[in-house]
Amino acid sequence: MPIVIFEPSGRRIECEAGANLLEVCWEHHIPIESLCGGNGACGRCTVQVTDGHVPVTDEQRIHFDENRLARGWRLACQTRADHNLRVNVPAPAGSLKSHIITNGEAPKVHVAPAVRKHFLKLNDATLREPLSDSERIKRALPDGAGLRFRPAALRKLPETLRQGRRHVTVTVWDGAVLDVEAGDTSKNCYGIAFDVGTSTVVALLVDLNTGDELGVAAALNTQRKYGEDVISRISFCREHADGVETLSAEITGLLSDLAAQVTAARGMDLRHVYEYVAVGNTTMAHLIAGVDPSPLGELPYAPVFTACHTMLDGPKGAQLGHRPFELPAAIGAYVGSDALSAVVALGLHTKPGTRLFYDIGTNAEILAGGRKRMLATSAAAGPAFEGVKIECGMIGVAGAIDTCTVHDGDLAFTTIGDVEPVGICGSGLVDIAAVLLDLGVIDPSGRLLARDACPDTVPPKVRERLHDGKTTTRIALAEDVYLSQRDVRELQNAKAAIAAGVDILLHHLGISPKDLDEVLIGGAFGSMLNPRSAQRIGVIPAVPLDKVRAVGNTALQGAKAYLLSTDVRHEICNARDHIELHELSTEPDFTDRFAAHMPFAAG
Amino acid sequence: MPIVIFEPSGRRIECEAGANLLEVCWEHHIPIESLCGGNGACGRCTVQVTDGHVPVTDEQRIHFDENRLARGWRLACQTRADHNLRVNVPAPAGSLKSHIITNGEAPKVHVAPAVRKHFLKLNDATLREPLSDSERIKRALPDGAGLRFRPAALRKLPETLRQGRRHVTVTVWDGAVLDVEAGDTSKNCYGIAFDVGTSTVVALLVDLNTGDELGVAAALNTQRKYGEDVISRISFCREHADGVETLSAEITGLLSDLAAQVTAARGMDLRHVYEYVAVGNTTMAHLIAGVDPSPLGELPYAPVFTACHTMLDGPKGAQLGHRPFELPAAIGAYVGSDALSAVVALGLHTKPGTRLFYDIGTNAEILAGGRKRMLATSAAAGPAFEGVKIECGMIGVAGAIDTCTVHDGDLAFTTIGDVEPVGICGSGLVDIAAVLLDLGVIDPSGRLLARDACPDTVPPKVRERLHDGKTTTRIALAEDVYLSQRDVRELQNAKAAIAAGVDILLHHLGISPKDLDEVLIGGAFGSMLNPRSAQRIGVIPAVPLDKVRAVGNTALQGAKAYLLSTDVRHEICNARDHIELHELSTEPDFTDRFAAHMPFAAG
Repeated sequence: MPIVIFEPSGRRIECEAGANLLEVCWEHHIPIESLCGGNGACGRCTVQVTDGHVPVTDEQRIHFDENRLARGWRLACQTRADHNLRVNVPAPAGSLKSHIITNGEAPKVHVAPAVRKHFLKLNDATLREPLSDSERIKRALPDGAGLRFRPAALRKLPETLRQGRRHVTVTVWDGAVLDVEAGDTSKNCYGIAFDVGTSTVVALLVDLNTGDELGVAAALNTQRKYGEDVISRISFCREHADGVETLSAEITGLLSDLAAQVTAARGMDLRHVYEYVAVGNTTMAHLIAGVDPSPLGELPYAPVFTACHTMLDGPKGAQLGHRPFELPAAIGAYVGSDALSAVVALGLHTKPGTRLFYDIGTNAEILAGGRKRMLATSAAAGPAFEGVKIECGMIGVAGAIDTCTVHDGDLAFTTIGDVEPVGICGSGLVDIAAVLLDLGVIDPSGRLLARDACPDTVPPKVRERLHDGKTTTRIALAEDVYLSQRDVRELQNAKAAIAAGVDILLHHLGISPKDLDEVLIGGAFGSMLNPRSAQRIGVIPAVPLDKVRAVGNTALQGAKAYLLSTDVRHEICNARDHIELHELSTEPDFTDRFAAHMPFAAG
Repeated sequence: MPIVIFEPSGRRIECEAGANLLEVCWEHHIPIESLCGGNGACGRCTVQVTDGHVPVTDEQRIHFDENRLARGWRLACQTRADHNLRVNVPAPAGSLKSHIITNGEAPKVHVAPAVRKHFLKLNDATLREPLSDSERIKRALPDGAGLRFRPAALRKLPETLRQGRRHVTVTVWDGAVLDVEAGDTSKNCYGIAFDVGTSTVVALLVDLNTGDELGVAAALNTQRKYGEDVISRISFCREHADGVETLSAEITGLLSDLAAQVTAARGMDLRHVYEYVAVGNTTMAHLIAGVDPSPLGELPYAPVFTACHTMLDGPKGAQLGHRPFELPAAIGAYVGSDALSAVVALGLHTKPGTRLFYDIGTNAEILAGGRKRMLATSAAAGPAFEGVKIECGMIGVAGAIDTCTVHDGDLAFTTIGDVEPVGICGSGLVDIAAVLLDLGVIDPSGRLLARDACPDTVPPKVRERLHDGKTTTRIALAEDVYLSQRDVRELQNAKAAIAAGVDILLHHLGISPKDLDEVLIGGAFGSMLNPRSAQRIGVIPAVPLDKVRAVGNTALQGAKAYLLSTDVRHEICNARDHIELHELSTEPDFTDRFAAHMPFAAG
């Protein structure tokens, strides 16, 4: 019987060979849109088959163009599961979007982007002074003398001048004319900032005239089918001759889809997007550039590039209108441009005082310091906080347990989207562990106690949830959802790695946690996290909780500022020199500190 | 019966349907190589079918790749003439090459090109300082700090470092890394300069380390099938929706072929050619850039661009390894970058004294002046001097009458390649006209006298050559080769336009011919021309003949200097501002002067 893995939840469902995908979703309560009841008319039940072959039928061709068909898009109601499949079901009514954080603390920027549009009313050339068209445009522009034309803009020029009767809008970027259009289109000037994570990718559409955010699109990183974390994707590149090409095509295709989606949602044309910027971990940056990330997976973990990288015609294979695409500078192999972008967004490198900043995803990126000195490191926390490698883990989408409390003598949960629990996401995991530690169901060594080994103070309803799993103790949370002893060990590994990393940075700065002015937590995880629980399990050092603050997606906000201000752009590229990168594996006492942080604090 | 037009001679041959092309060549004495006698084995009888369809057979596939097949290359011995065809038969043993001039007066340049190769022995990155590969390269290079990587070079970097065990050669161009290669390839650093004429295209391979010329390839401009002169090609663009695309593909394909040819002849790899520069008339520059030249064909004749234009990835559709391709600045619509390049090559704009410089092709480009002031114009001389629109005219290749004298009471001729005369090229035309003027066979009004109207001084053998043609008098030169009254009128038009142009420039400078220090004639025509004959027919003003000098292909030499020296590059771009462009049609007395120059000087 074929197995269908449904993304984003990761649920594996065994179904009849030839089963209708829409019906499988209905039967297993997988949220999916449908207005017509499954007869192929409404075109709402779109899914993306990311692994496994599904033939293209004429019904599908009505709803999708060749490009999207090639990328696996299908109507679920017209698709049968004949073999094993991996199917991404876009969350209906924005339930994915609402849990992918786009807002965050942002620098105040004076809007002065690299892209500028100028509406020009040119006079006719005369026989007495038959200046070339490009020359007349240059003379009409501020600082136009040294301006070059990009080949495509020059090719368009004669027809555009004819159409616009010499009234044209000229788009200038970095001393080059990118585009010419007939008439006045100077108001339509946009950029897109991407935050490219290992699990999720977010696109933010920005008005380059006003600085306004015009829309957001988000999706799971479709590279996930090649491995959950960056290490497994690097391995894929090392082990497959076309590995780099495959993963590059996957991410550039996804970026193209998101750009099309976020512009179409506003009825805009992709041709008015003049610049793209993508921040992300260094492996993602390499793959967007089409560069083999293999060296990131072997000693001494030296990246191929960390400096700002500009692709004038966009990434190879992307469908982004051949516009400039920027990958801002990264700090190192495992502290990416997202972290550097966050530093600038938060002004960590310029403000007085000393701060600790985390961005916890598959890897934890940790920065500590201030304007005098700033240190960075990354801790291989593993993807536990993204719900990965947790037996019932899932990323933070509909159905994920995201909080846990004790209520009425029992555990009580909320889920994202207020639906039946289908798994545990990172913030839920932290909350559950904190509650179980407080109750004494997990002891300081990390042991999940058997039912009869629990202290008497554990309420009977909680105690009854404990049972023996296949190999270790489990505690049931909901139907088919549980936390296992092995999950707790994963959590311990993750938190010990982060805590040891923080320890070492503070040690190098010669300070202790009490000297910290603030502890800032970035990213989606930070926004959903209960800080008290995080501190209870030891991810956050012992500081007063009023010093702890979730700052949102500062990486994306930094990328937006990069689009809007050439000053910020230079700051992001230069701030890197200010930051000392520490590789934890070269720290002689890392192992000791890691071991010391394995236990939890006593209740 | 199908008609086959053979290039470069332009001979039209009617042949049996299905005739074997190699046999047709043999039968009609068209020079073609063949070693195997026509059984498809030797692959030497290559021809290019530039017009008309010839199917691709398996025999052809053995000798040509898909690209060349698509561009019409075939073995003549395996090709049948089923329909009308236009076939270019490359001249054997360089007979075309030897009559396309590549050498010429050249500026002395200090070799300091934009392209530089650096062999680097990089150390391994360390865990203590895991600098990125690109960062280590930048630190090892002079002025490497601000260096960017072109996307393709960055993509190659990891594998190249691995292959070369960190010993790599880095190619830098204009602040960007163009390429990285394993090992030391720093000696292999080449550029190609093109001179793109309406009729002929020349490629010069240059060693960018030493400045040496390594090879030359030349071909007829395959755009000729769309029109002999630029005006007809501009019309083709105006009249056909895909006209620009067609002519662009034609010229970029030809440039790609010539680049492949000139490098292959030296056993070199095209990937070691790092920069291309093409000078030519402004229409050719537009078409190389893929820009519609239509505005050049309508009032006020304003070009789309005249400034230096760089195509970082080469012209669209060219197969030149996506390397930077430069189109240097032009002076105006009909005074192209070839003229500006010649000005700099000759130092006309910097030397003391006053000079007159011509480059006579389909159009005559005329420059006059010196370092204080320099004027330029173009005279629509028509293509008479390229042998076009002359009834038995042909370009200067094997079989063309190139000189004429009186010997033994009769006209005597030499031909290019010392073969039987098949037509008259430009220099032959000038010589013949001068001799006939001296003899009195042509009178000062330009009338070619009938046999019995000739003065008695005309030798009988010459007189016997005169006869009545279809509509006008003709003088027979060889079997099937003659000069007609109409040809003399074409010549008069051409020389009057040039002489009027010279007049006007000298008038604006306030000087007369006797004030000229030198009269310089550029291009292939200038090199083959008998200056005395040219002066006799009035193309060269009345100056002592020792002031007249053929300077060769100074445009190509200027382009070569552009490759070799960034200083020359700036000079070519800046010299333009020093030159005043005069449009003859706006000169009130142009028509009078033109009329005044129609007659020839009395004998």
